[in-house]
Amino acid sequence: MTQLSPTVELAAELISRRSVTPEDAGCQELMIARLEAIGFKIERLPFEDTLNFWARRGDAGPVLCFAGHTDVVPTGPEEQWEFPPFEPELSKGMLCGRGAADMKGSLAAFIVAIERFVANHPDHGGSLALLITSDEEGPFINGTTRVIDHLEARGEKITWCLVGEPSSTDKVGDVIKNGRRGSLSGTLRVRGIQGHVAYPHLVRNPIHEAAPALAELSAEVWDQGNEFFPPTSFQISNINGGTGATNVVPGHVDIAFNFRFSTEVTADNLKERVRDILNKHGLDWDIDWVLSGNPFLTAAGELVEASQEAIRAITGIETELSTSGGTSDGRFIAPTGAQVVELGPCNATIHKVNERVSMRDLDTLSDLYENIIARLLLQ
Amino acid sequence: MTQLSPTVELAAELISRRSVTPEDAGCQELMIARLEAIGFKIERLPFEDTLNFWARRGDAGPVLCFAGHTDVVPTGPEEQWEFPPFEPELSKGMLCGRGAADMKGSLAAFIVAIERFVANHPDHGGSLALLITSDEEGPFINGTTRVIDHLEARGEKITWCLVGEPSSTDKVGDVIKNGRRGSLSGTLRVRGIQGHVAYPHLVRNPIHEAAPALAELSAEVWDQGNEFFPPTSFQISNINGGTGATNVVPGHVDIAFNFRFSTEVTADNLKERVRDILNKHGLDWDIDWVLSGNPFLTAAGELVEASQEAIRAITGIETELSTSGGTSDGRFIAPTGAQVVELGPCNATIHKVNERVSMRDLDTLSDLYENIIARLLLQ
Repeated sequence: MTQLSPTVELAAELISRRSVTPEDAGCQELMIARLEAIGFKIERLPFEDTLNFWARRGDAGPVLCFAGHTDVVPTGPEEQWEFPPFEPELSKGMLCGRGAADMKGSLAAFIVAIERFVANHPDHGGSLALLITSDEEGPFINGTTRVIDHLEARGEKITWCLVGEPSSTDKVGDVIKNGRRGSLSGTLRVRGIQGHVAYPHLVRNPIHEAAPALAELSAEVWDQGNEFFPPTSFQISNINGGTGATNVVPGHVDIAFNFRFSTEVTADNLKERVRDILNKHGLDWDIDWVLSGNPFLTAAGELVEASQEAIRAITGIETELSTSGGTSDGRFIAPTGAQVVELGPCNATIHKVNERVSMRDLDTLSDLYENIIARLLLQ
Repeated sequence: MTQLSPTVELAAELISRRSVTPEDAGCQELMIARLEAIGFKIERLPFEDTLNFWARRGDAGPVLCFAGHTDVVPTGPEEQWEFPPFEPELSKGMLCGRGAADMKGSLAAFIVAIERFVANHPDHGGSLALLITSDEEGPFINGTTRVIDHLEARGEKITWCLVGEPSSTDKVGDVIKNGRRGSLSGTLRVRGIQGHVAYPHLVRNPIHEAAPALAELSAEVWDQGNEFFPPTSFQISNINGGTGATNVVPGHVDIAFNFRFSTEVTADNLKERVRDILNKHGLDWDIDWVLSGNPFLTAAGELVEASQEAIRAITGIETELSTSGGTSDGRFIAPTGAQVVELGPCNATIHKVNERVSMRDLDTLSDLYENIIARLLLQ
């Protein structure tokens, strides 16, 4: 592997470390060594099975932070991979391996961009920081959220946060995420009275009783969305009722559902409206709720502007602001008041077998990060 | 086991034969030996794994037939039985063992009633017959239905058919069945388009689409029943949709349902109405239908009358005519034009562990059968 760019070389080094959540496999120490060499102060913040660190260069505000994760999702069936997933390979202009796009490529682009910037501007204004975890793809309990708690407890604030999640669709920089919908899940049980189908007067069929309520929940318009968010969406993912026997009416039916919700509603509001619909239908029910994340939005501000201008300057693309897709660790950072933007490589292969990223895109991404740093810290 | 009545003694002999469907385990040959001894002509009619026989005494009409089965349902966990299920035991006035109530007790009561009747009236009018199978509790493909086909093919008719199914509730003779509802089952698949819950515009959720149709099917009034039948009942027994993952909208949902239907509707009519409701909701669906039996009814006639009068004379009970409960082999016999009545012992323990029957009830049942024979064949 000769004549690789510094970003691709570092990305390949990170890929070769088998850091399936919550393993870090030495990725963070590799990054820390590079950051310490250019004057960062490092704070290692392990919690339970998760490694995290907070790195900062400078004591003044404003603080521009890069946030990311060293863990990767499992490989799936390794025999289906063209190349072994933890042996980075170059093929047709692409760097191949688990984590290439999500998000070891971004981590390498961060580090190399910062190295270049610090070399040219050792006395930059404000501070540069990194918030890195090994638990973004897993239960996300001991990762970013706990580091944020730690910073909040001592009053340390992030002004602008660039998250390295692979936001791009066709070309690097064509989409950045300036927010995400909230995600609220529920597991609903509707109870009836079990019995033999031949004796309908002795049963209360929970599937029959649930059906009109599910129809109403499915048809409900929860909101209209707004300029930044599509309308809130309700989806039933699983429904299971029945003993397997075809002559028995079951005693209960279980329904798993999920809301992806905009800033026009709140989780509490959604729970209340679901409760009202179930009660209106006279059901005997209970729900276990899990709020995975509230919606967040960085509608405008210096970070969005700097990102748009950097992308325009380096790639010529008018980038699209989007809040679509799943959740990200941005949901833990935005509530502190930080402006949050996600900018990373193309996401076509993430979480799949044969994950890969364009080597040229990684270099462009590193240039974009450096350009954004300059716009924000050299004002 | 001394001083047992002939009925209880024969019932115990039958119970000791382990005849789980489709096994007969020698029960039919035991019955045949007794019937041949009193002048019955026997026709053995084995089909595939099932033993059946047709026995007849007399060539003239009318024909009074006893119908029954020598097979029994599985025991379930034998260690939960107070006594071994195939070692008949007497306890507190009860004969205990698998098949005691369903329906080896009835078979014994048939045989002994016929033996007494023939001894007293060797030259009775009409004919006495028995239609016995070893596949009533199982798939009921090679049992009664094929014997009936065989009789129909040569134009041999049953005038009156007494089925020995355990019809009684609290006292022997308190309920007789003069018909049964039909049973029509369907397995419905509703198809949508699978996808990620976070991208609702790319999915078509089959659970959402099915819900209003299921609500309508559950609320539909299929008929009002009539003098003899309760209203037709629709019950969903099982519903299953989902991949298990809570972030995936499934590609289809499967629903198993069953109609128990009266003589006010037909299976074809029900299928058409289900189809219309599904189509009205614009679903992408298909159904596998299984018709287990059409409803049948012996509203009135000599057999119902003779049964009512025999029960009144011997027990003092005003018996109740009922069409409730599951299906029975009567559904194969009634369409030939025969009058069909089910009369047997109490059904509290059938298909359960510790099945048992009152020894006194078996003797009463044998008296009832003899009395009915006399009323019909000595006119």
